[in-house]
Amino acid sequence: MAGSSFGNIFRITTWGESHGPALGVVVDGCPAGLEIDEEYIQHFLDLRRPGQSSYTTPRKESDKVTILSGIFEGRTTGTPISMLVENKSQRSSDYSDIAGYYRPGHADYTFDSKYGFRDYRGGGRSSGRETIGRVAGGAVAMKLLEEVGISSTAFVRSIGPVTISEENFDKDQILKNPLRMPDAAAADRARAYLDNLKKDMDSSGCVIECRIDGVPAGLGDPVFEKLSASIARAVCSIGAVKGFEIGDGFGAAACRGSENNDAFCLSEDGSGIVKASNHSGGLLGGMSDGSQIVLRAAVKPTPSIARTQHTVTKAGREIEINIKGRHDPLIGPRAVVVVQSMASLAIADALLMNMTARVDYLKKIYGK
Amino acid sequence: MAGSSFGNIFRITTWGESHGPALGVVVDGCPAGLEIDEEYIQHFLDLRRPGQSSYTTPRKESDKVTILSGIFEGRTTGTPISMLVENKSQRSSDYSDIAGYYRPGHADYTFDSKYGFRDYRGGGRSSGRETIGRVAGGAVAMKLLEEVGISSTAFVRSIGPVTISEENFDKDQILKNPLRMPDAAAADRARAYLDNLKKDMDSSGCVIECRIDGVPAGLGDPVFEKLSASIARAVCSIGAVKGFEIGDGFGAAACRGSENNDAFCLSEDGSGIVKASNHSGGLLGGMSDGSQIVLRAAVKPTPSIARTQHTVTKAGREIEINIKGRHDPLIGPRAVVVVQSMASLAIADALLMNMTARVDYLKKIYGK
Amino acid sequence: MAGSSFGNIFRITTWGESHGPALGVVVDGCPAGLEIDEEYIQHFLDLRRPGQSSYTTPRKESDKVTILSGIFEGRTTGTPISMLVENKSQRSSDYSDIAGYYRPGHADYTFDSKYGFRDYRGGGRSSGRETIGRVAGGAVAMKLLEEVGISSTAFVRSIGPVTISEENFDKDQILKNPLRMPDAAAADRARAYLDNLKKDMDSSGCVIECRIDGVPAGLGDPVFEKLSASIARAVCSIGAVKGFEIGDGFGAAACRGSENNDAFCLSEDGSGIVKASNHSGGLLGGMSDGSQIVLRAAVKPTPSIARTQHTVTKAGREIEINIKGRHDPLIGPRAVVVVQSMASLAIADALLMNMTARVDYLKKIYGK
Amino acid sequence: MAGSSFGNIFRITTWGESHGPALGVVVDGCPAGLEIDEEYIQHFLDLRRPGQSSYTTPRKESDKVTILSGIFEGRTTGTPISMLVENKSQRSSDYSDIAGYYRPGHADYTFDSKYGFRDYRGGGRSSGRETIGRVAGGAVAMKLLEEVGISSTAFVRSIGPVTISEENFDKDQILKNPLRMPDAAAADRARAYLDNLKKDMDSSGCVIECRIDGVPAGLGDPVFEKLSASIARAVCSIGAVKGFEIGDGFGAAACRGSENNDAFCLSEDGSGIVKASNHSGGLLGGMSDGSQIVLRAAVKPTPSIARTQHTVTKAGREIEINIKGRHDPLIGPRAVVVVQSMASLAIADALLMNMTARVDYLKKIYGK
Repeated sequence: MAGSSFGNIFRITTWGESHGPALGVVVDGCPAGLEIDEEYIQHFLDLRRPGQSSYTTPRKESDKVTILSGIFEGRTTGTPISMLVENKSQRSSDYSDIAGYYRPGHADYTFDSKYGFRDYRGGGRSSGRETIGRVAGGAVAMKLLEEVGISSTAFVRSIGPVTISEENFDKDQILKNPLRMPDAAAADRARAYLDNLKKDMDSSGCVIECRIDGVPAGLGDPVFEKLSASIARAVCSIGAVKGFEIGDGFGAAACRGSENNDAFCLSEDGSGIVKASNHSGGLLGGMSDGSQIVLRAAVKPTPSIARTQHTVTKAGREIEINIKGRHDPLIGPRAVVVVQSMASLAIADALLMNMTARVDYLKKIYGK
Repeated sequence: MAGSSFGNIFRITTWGESHGPALGVVVDGCPAGLEIDEEYIQHFLDLRRPGQSSYTTPRKESDKVTILSGIFEGRTTGTPISMLVENKSQRSSDYSDIAGYYRPGHADYTFDSKYGFRDYRGGGRSSGRETIGRVAGGAVAMKLLEEVGISSTAFVRSIGPVTISEENFDKDQILKNPLRMPDAAAADRARAYLDNLKKDMDSSGCVIECRIDGVPAGLGDPVFEKLSASIARAVCSIGAVKGFEIGDGFGAAACRGSENNDAFCLSEDGSGIVKASNHSGGLLGGMSDGSQIVLRAAVKPTPSIARTQHTVTKAGREIEINIKGRHDPLIGPRAVVVVQSMASLAIADALLMNMTARVDYLKKIYGK
Repeated sequence: MAGSSFGNIFRITTWGESHGPALGVVVDGCPAGLEIDEEYIQHFLDLRRPGQSSYTTPRKESDKVTILSGIFEGRTTGTPISMLVENKSQRSSDYSDIAGYYRPGHADYTFDSKYGFRDYRGGGRSSGRETIGRVAGGAVAMKLLEEVGISSTAFVRSIGPVTISEENFDKDQILKNPLRMPDAAAADRARAYLDNLKKDMDSSGCVIECRIDGVPAGLGDPVFEKLSASIARAVCSIGAVKGFEIGDGFGAAACRGSENNDAFCLSEDGSGIVKASNHSGGLLGGMSDGSQIVLRAAVKPTPSIARTQHTVTKAGREIEINIKGRHDPLIGPRAVVVVQSMASLAIADALLMNMTARVDYLKKIYGK
Repeated sequence: MAGSSFGNIFRITTWGESHGPALGVVVDGCPAGLEIDEEYIQHFLDLRRPGQSSYTTPRKESDKVTILSGIFEGRTTGTPISMLVENKSQRSSDYSDIAGYYRPGHADYTFDSKYGFRDYRGGGRSSGRETIGRVAGGAVAMKLLEEVGISSTAFVRSIGPVTISEENFDKDQILKNPLRMPDAAAADRARAYLDNLKKDMDSSGCVIECRIDGVPAGLGDPVFEKLSASIARAVCSIGAVKGFEIGDGFGAAACRGSENNDAFCLSEDGSGIVKASNHSGGLLGGMSDGSQIVLRAAVKPTPSIARTQHTVTKAGREIEINIKGRHDPLIGPRAVVVVQSMASLAIADALLMNMTARVDYLKKIYGK
């Protein structure tokens, strides 16, 4: 089944394995006339690049993007935008030992179960490098969203037991500390926690949050194409994501209707409708309500840990293993931009879909 | 945008509003030769029917299903199965007062924002009655899953602050108590909690859990069609769901790799590979790993509460409202079968998709 | 595979068999605010209804449509429009003899090959009655197209060896003669031809033409979603259609570039670009060029003929058969509205899709 | 709208413009375990390469394919196969004069109408070079079809007024003469016809035929996913195709039921069901009937002719133009492999889709 595409109207198709010659993405359905260039896209790819701190893998990958189609004289033409990143650092020998057994927490066993065999080098298609295509595609989506005043902020909300405090929230901190936490004090505590984990040859999970501003009310459809459902699919399609929340999320399940309902009121200048609170996280009945969209992803700890682990070989023998190689003790900081990309792709698609929601709009475009 | 369909190969398309003459579903892509009848489907519809306890709405709706196509001599023919439930109890007058204002926590405002106007009677398309089509379609999916030995159990895991304990887990309790909790003691505590809420004219959120057994390893695709992503979309497309987890979910985000990784080992008879634990909730790299699939949905409190609430009219005036009508103080018990239905639909679709994953399979079907 | 849906954004899903209790269609993705009612749709259904002349089947079917959802106070709401037609005249006994053998030219054998068995009553899902859903859905599409000034005319161009002449073209004749030919003299000749065929217990093929006016330039996409390709799929999905042409069609294959190229020139008032001729049939590079779209469908002769025919039984024995029952000696006149419906559905979908083609349009809808 | 993908399960996404750095395709949904390499794919690309005779463009393009993903140790892995061909011969200066006006018969005007502007270099996305991706993807489909014994033959059936005769049919001739006609005498006559056209600075249309053997009965779905409809869409999505036929096509429209019906009979050894004739072209009710699938595409004359033509500039002025550059006086011979590729893609998709048609098949794959 063709499972490497995301989106209905604004659609990306990613391709590539960890150790093939290149990875890439085809962005199809982007409206014509969007000004964009490689530099804009490279900015987001750089945010997911490894080697940015001692908490992420020290591999050096330049991950330079090349645009191969769909842009003419600085603007999108409406035809597919093909982007490619070469794999410069393919040290296959590092991975030869994992060909024969199934690493706990990884997709090795499920890959073999599905396809009968697998490209075992560096995780193959299940490698985190697959997200290069998502981020390059997501960058185009973000540029499109900018055109109508939609912007987003993503960050690490918690690492293991350490969570940011809303009072200390400082957006500028996100790019200042390598843990991408918008709270300098929490980042310090998380750093201490991670230093201990590293000594223990262990890894940590984390929660990533993304907030999107400027989304007009009415995006998303009332049933299966709820914007909440599309974003859920988008975010849960990222490897290692095991949980997802919109607004108060699981907190809403524990509270009362009188606490969770957001009262509607008039905006200060009386010109529009706003909400007195935002427990809904910007979505009601699956459609955007004009408030900030707030979502969270629970990311499991990196399964590649240096400790001895128990597993089974392809041939059916139980063994103890020690995984070598270059791995992230914490995937979170690099995954921030991936979450932001996927959310942006879902919203860009909903933005375009919503253009066909009313006969009025039809007349705006085709009317004489 | 056509947003009322779910699934790629096994696909349902639902239709109908709360107060129209009928609601229904078309199930397309069900393989030919499945034995099924109205009685089988009615069983699941009865589980979502209102009026089963004092904690759900006392409306009396028989919700009898009629199959209009796709079944011949007791078996599916491979062509679309159309099913219809008439709306017998349409008291539109109850809802006439809500036409002019936006109920907090409901989709009234977002509907108007999207389409310019709305069918305000009983929530229209955003009514919980829309799930009738999901449950009828989900029943067909469950019957299909049975054919290959896949079965599922769904229940209420927590209501407000009351959570079941794993030690007390008693599957038989699910249908015995109206709160659908598999723990009699927890159900008692939840009942007391709800009785208090009712006095306060308030409502409660809850967490629903679904466990699926017998899923062969390898279902789902490695990238955007991860089974976790498809189930996430399926479950988050249910109105009122604000959070979603697979396996340890948000718990995984708070723990260490050494705690979260499930060791592989040989099954007792040595014939297959199993896991020593199931923190992954049955999915690795987005594909089923042969273990039980475990998922949870966070359901927000019913927004329709009898208390006075603040809101805005369509004309842009702030008012205080008291919503009348027949509403569920707790949607959870009736939503259990909806979660189970949506999960089953996602898995049935993945089951069929996976049949095309290998050239070997092709030869099994077409080989001479 | 879910094969009963057509369209990406404006999508219909049809269901129902010839001898089930009902047939119908769900129209999803129709923009909100379109004024439409059952009477409008019934008009088109009446055009495909049998019993309109001695050349089509004398069965009496009222085929009254009921709208079950998606319309509120006379306008589409943006949610799925479910429409249903009851099967009043189900004489299953007529068909019991065909259960055991494969009628030449019919789908009996291919149905059994695909699904292992079939609903043999009246052709089951392959019956011409399946087109009821297409026509009801097509009517909604035509109403939407009217909103932007698009209209269409469809008719029978030729019956067996008899073809209309362009000089005699009289649009009013289409509904005046039961053969739906816009040329009274040709209709007379065709009638004589058919009278002879009836004596011979034979049937005739025909060519149906559809012309669509008012289509703005630019609909369709340059590659796989060419409007020509979408219309081709739409029209070739009608049972009995064996050929398809746009503009000069096969005639273009036999001529020279200098004959086939349409020169561009300025419109009379100098305000726009028009073509001096229309060999292209309104489509260049798969996108509409602002001229009239002209398409033709080759319809094979009705396979149900009263003559003795040779075939094979399900059990694998060769036999001679004489098919009884109520059949059309000429399907053409009733299929005219089906071709028009399918073309309209393809164009409506392209019309909506094209709304997302430019960043400019995005700003028209979302701009402040 | 994302319009650069074709197929539901076996899906290709093409990208690239005539004068960009490269063109390519992503093949998604190909089953794992198919043995294939660049050499196999190059064979088909070489058949569409220009410069093979004086009747096609003399441009020298090596069109060497590189596989970037989805193949491991000589076999498909089940993940997307990305293939790329560099554009070596980009002489943009040749095309600079066409930026300002609309060439008759080309997509220049419709492109500008759709997107507001266009990449005018060499036709941009509407260039024949776009078919590189189709042919590379089609090659993978053909390799898959081989696995179950399906093979195809494609050729030029007629050029202008010259048509092959069935009696002279000689398959070996197809690759022997540059016109790809399986009839040496017809090829000679066509050559003479073309030589005259060249003197006249004109071009010719042609008819391409494709015959597919070994297709099991039952592929395709009975309604909108009829195999005839999918192939129609596939073939009509090729630029310059203006007509399409299955089996007797338009001939069927002119004949009688008694002539057009194919009698069923037993195969010689009595083991299976065959047809005494094949007017249906291998498809009944839209599903394959086990006979040879026969389809034809009407290709219009190349619009780029050296003669003086009348047109309009972008600025709205009428002018006379003489198009320079390297163009095919006859596109047919190079388009043969494109038609074959598109037909193969449609059939491969139907082959995979059909695997989910029966509960029996489900048990064959998942049964214990």
